[in-house]
Amino acid sequence: MSHSLDEQVENICSGDRRAVARAISQVENGGPSSIPLLKTLFHKAGRAFVIGITGSPGAGKSTLVEKLATEYRRQNKRVGIVAVDPTSPFSGGAILGDRIRMQALANDDGAYIRSMATRGQLGGLAPAAYDATLILDAAGCDVVLIETVGVGQDEVEIARLADATVVMLVPGMGDDIQTFKAGIMEIADLFVINKADQPGAEQVKNEIKLMLSVAPRSADWQTPILKTVATTGEGVCGLVEAVESFRHFLESHPMGADRRRERARLHLLALLRQRLFERVARQQFDKQSIDRYVGDILERLRDPHSIVEEIMEASGFRSGSV
Amino acid sequence: MSHSLDEQVENICSGDRRAVARAISQVENGGPSSIPLLKTLFHKAGRAFVIGITGSPGAGKSTLVEKLATEYRRQNKRVGIVAVDPTSPFSGGAILGDRIRMQALANDDGAYIRSMATRGQLGGLAPAAYDATLILDAAGCDVVLIETVGVGQDEVEIARLADATVVMLVPGMGDDIQTFKAGIMEIADLFVINKADQPGAEQVKNEIKLMLSVAPRSADWQTPILKTVATTGEGVCGLVEAVESFRHFLESHPMGADRRRERARLHLLALLRQRLFERVARQQFDKQSIDRYVGDILERLRDPHSIVEEIMEASGFRSGSV
Repeated sequence: MSHSLDEQVENICSGDRRAVARAISQVENGGPSSIPLLKTLFHKAGRAFVIGITGSPGAGKSTLVEKLATEYRRQNKRVGIVAVDPTSPFSGGAILGDRIRMQALANDDGAYIRSMATRGQLGGLAPAAYDATLILDAAGCDVVLIETVGVGQDEVEIARLADATVVMLVPGMGDDIQTFKAGIMEIADLFVINKADQPGAEQVKNEIKLMLSVAPRSADWQTPILKTVATTGEGVCGLVEAVESFRHFLESHPMGADRRRERARLHLLALLRQRLFERVARQQFDKQSIDRYVGDILERLRDPHSIVEEIMEASGFRSGSV
Repeated sequence: MSHSLDEQVENICSGDRRAVARAISQVENGGPSSIPLLKTLFHKAGRAFVIGITGSPGAGKSTLVEKLATEYRRQNKRVGIVAVDPTSPFSGGAILGDRIRMQALANDDGAYIRSMATRGQLGGLAPAAYDATLILDAAGCDVVLIETVGVGQDEVEIARLADATVVMLVPGMGDDIQTFKAGIMEIADLFVINKADQPGAEQVKNEIKLMLSVAPRSADWQTPILKTVATTGEGVCGLVEAVESFRHFLESHPMGADRRRERARLHLLALLRQRLFERVARQQFDKQSIDRYVGDILERLRDPHSIVEEIMEASGFRSGSV
């Protein structure tokens, strides 16, 4: 069943769910065949608002994402969901039977759900998540929700793909809040305290307030701290309203343009890294040659830097310093 | 204060702590100047046993790492510590005053402590952690402990740098254990249940046992599940003994050689990615040209893939398909 590129693009842009799913698989698998597709779709995209939702495992991200998506669907907006969280019901947590919860959205033609089960993938998750977002955007999604676990370099990079980043906390996190301080807190446009019906919600709120009071931030956007109970849907409408307020803020404030610029720059650099590597790896590497290089390293005959330099020279790199 | 390369290498290999610290800073900052150093040190290293310790925030990793290091020091072994955990007292958590706990090791000439505060660094943490380990190895460390948070791609890659990987869990993790199932459990050579004096330790042990019974693993190594109370030091000697048993196992079992081979291969590929990117970025990018590319992307005049292809051509890449 082969489609011409034009036909494929047309199917995606008409919102055909199978075409969208197939395209995401294609970019996820990598390889040159997806590049003409991504080039073409780039010119069809650019309208979706991308919301990153991050938080530690057990914070209830998947449930909140589901409720957010349902609320946007109620407003008749097309919604894409990209879950790059290993604990997500869309990817790993399916063991728990949580996937069942998503059944309503799974049968909704205006909702696109995709897990990125790409742990271990060379090149990282961020480029794959970016490409999936581009496809969902071209498919007519008004909103794309990206769900990540808020620890680790990759997750911070993914958060940077978003127009708005929601950081979720829960009461009784204890020392865990320390983790967030180191890198995640800075990227929050909105805070959500989920499971806000549990004891300690107010304490978490005060801790966030304290942090915000000492952190250097934009004077023009007052980072809101919202409370939700994702399981019951409590506070979800308020969260959507707050996100929409932030969207309007971005439209008129230089921060919006700055952020789009930074996102484009990071993606360009990540893409360059990935494609350089793929090109050289394809030209120079077969299993035999890798085994030979690795054998030399293990016997300490040659160091890895010298081998890399040899590979780069053999790839036809213009020689230069370094 | 400029040192010739020979002098610098000599100082590092004699175990001079300032020289070691300076060398790690040098590789952390990147750039071409560190490459001749790394090439030379490669031939001086290869003796250290590398132990990865991973677990979620709040599991007590830093405390356990400190106690492990102290025990190895008691055995008169030289110990290096590389903390790539944002919650670690060596990096982020210093806010809590935890750094004080490490004072004993900080004043010990046979212990080298280093945090990798490189969140946001292009190229990821794994290559930087590898280089730091190489330097500590060349400096005569018998054991290098790498501390990471066990969530996220980067952390899995860092764990792969280790000869032995210790996965820490705590009682009452609840759903968090799901996170670990998705990628971390597979890399554990030893499990440690820390805070084992708290209720639920036995339950966590049973959950791990159940998982191990269904997971495909080497028939020759029975993954031990140990209990510790890092704050009091309880169980730490037992953990060191178990790690040493695993070390002896690796010396005589094909798994040992397989693992060294895989580690060399992953590092080689990561290094190739990094150096290719650095070379091209240095040749082609100044702030002005990036701004121009990003401007084109934002106005959707050109897609990122086409720009990357132009950069690659301009870098003198031998042209080929894709």
